[in-house]
Amino acid sequence: MKVELENVKPMDIEKRSFEIITEELGDKKLVPGTELIVKRCIHTSADFDYAENLCFSENAVEKAIAAIKDGACIVTDTHMAESGINKRVLSRYGGEVFCFISDEDVAATAKANGTTRATASMDKAAAMGKKLIFAIGNAPTALVRLYELIEDGKLDPELIIGVPVGFVNVVQSKELIMQADVPYIVARGRKGGSNVAACICNALLYMIDNNRGY
Amino acid sequence: MKVELENVKPMDIEKRSFEIITEELGDKKLVPGTELIVKRCIHTSADFDYAENLCFSENAVEKAIAAIKDGACIVTDTHMAESGINKRVLSRYGGEVFCFISDEDVAATAKANGTTRATASMDKAAAMGKKLIFAIGNAPTALVRLYELIEDGKLDPELIIGVPVGFVNVVQSKELIMQADVPYIVARGRKGGSNVAACICNALLYMIDNNRGY
Repeated sequence: MKVELENVKPMDIEKRSFEIITEELGDKKLVPGTELIVKRCIHTSADFDYAENLCFSENAVEKAIAAIKDGACIVTDTHMAESGINKRVLSRYGGEVFCFISDEDVAATAKANGTTRATASMDKAAAMGKKLIFAIGNAPTALVRLYELIEDGKLDPELIIGVPVGFVNVVQSKELIMQADVPYIVARGRKGGSNVAACICNALLYMIDNNRGY
Repeated sequence: MKVELENVKPMDIEKRSFEIITEELGDKKLVPGTELIVKRCIHTSADFDYAENLCFSENAVEKAIAAIKDGACIVTDTHMAESGINKRVLSRYGGEVFCFISDEDVAATAKANGTTRATASMDKAAAMGKKLIFAIGNAPTALVRLYELIEDGKLDPELIIGVPVGFVNVVQSKELIMQADVPYIVARGRKGGSNVAACICNALLYMIDNNRGY
């Protein structure tokens, strides 16, 4: 088979990708104001399921953007997500990215309490007392703990990006977050991942910049 | 809706996930010896398409494992993949992970040559003269460059993990690699990602360890 490469300049690859995604979405109805987030999730996964499974609480995008502009920090449950978030753009608004999953005190607390390290890392984040966006791409136990902290009045996050991936309590943990009184962006069902968590953060950042908004 | 959480101990979550994946795969035929790689890709994405799209050159897994045991290093095209690879386990066999994508010399070379940084980063890796496994989860241009280097006799990798994701030249770049004279693991089509690239590396590492082999 003869392989024919499409001739696209490096700087135009992302733009061309978004054109293809938009074309293939056709007349699929997306919630107004969420299009760039949905498209970036498809861009990062080549999986059009994200046009169906992404759920947004009312005005979640507007609230998230306001929080970032106001210096909110982002907490993730994996170093992969931490690595994928555009920290240069976030820092322009005063925000930082935190991931406590491999901290020694978190490991010790998790062991003592018989929880996952993800659970313990959420407690550590909540104790910071900062304005926080949570981007959870891996551990449903992190989402469950966030739900408990919110219900107990110990945490009031700006946004929860609830996109853990997998087979054990993943579906349930996302439903819990959608029942809490908190702004959320959730990929309903089993799908998600650290890459999706990072890409939703980046989509929000690029919407503020108003560039890369294809 | 009442949400019911499944009661699974932290240390058993991964095992239970693999049981569910195995159950849902049913009597789907996988290439013998590749099962743990296919299942880990499904585990990392919750996407059963990986039971269909993963292609392995003859004895790719055995060759990769032999190379890792012999101290091969891994080169990735993203810091996310770099971050996701289990470097602690790899280091037991003498290997390291390299990602040159944000190096200043790579940026300068890319600019001078009008290529992507991914292309330039592959040239830098090839010049190391080390025993290398390439894990490409993002940039099809990296795969195209690897194909050219192999065809020109300038590179002889132990394995290419070709799982870039996306819409522009992704499908084609993977077909090129499958036409080259090189051991490969490729996710045919548009799907893949840095998470999938890292997870294939980890699946190989855990197969050597012979633990987490559910």
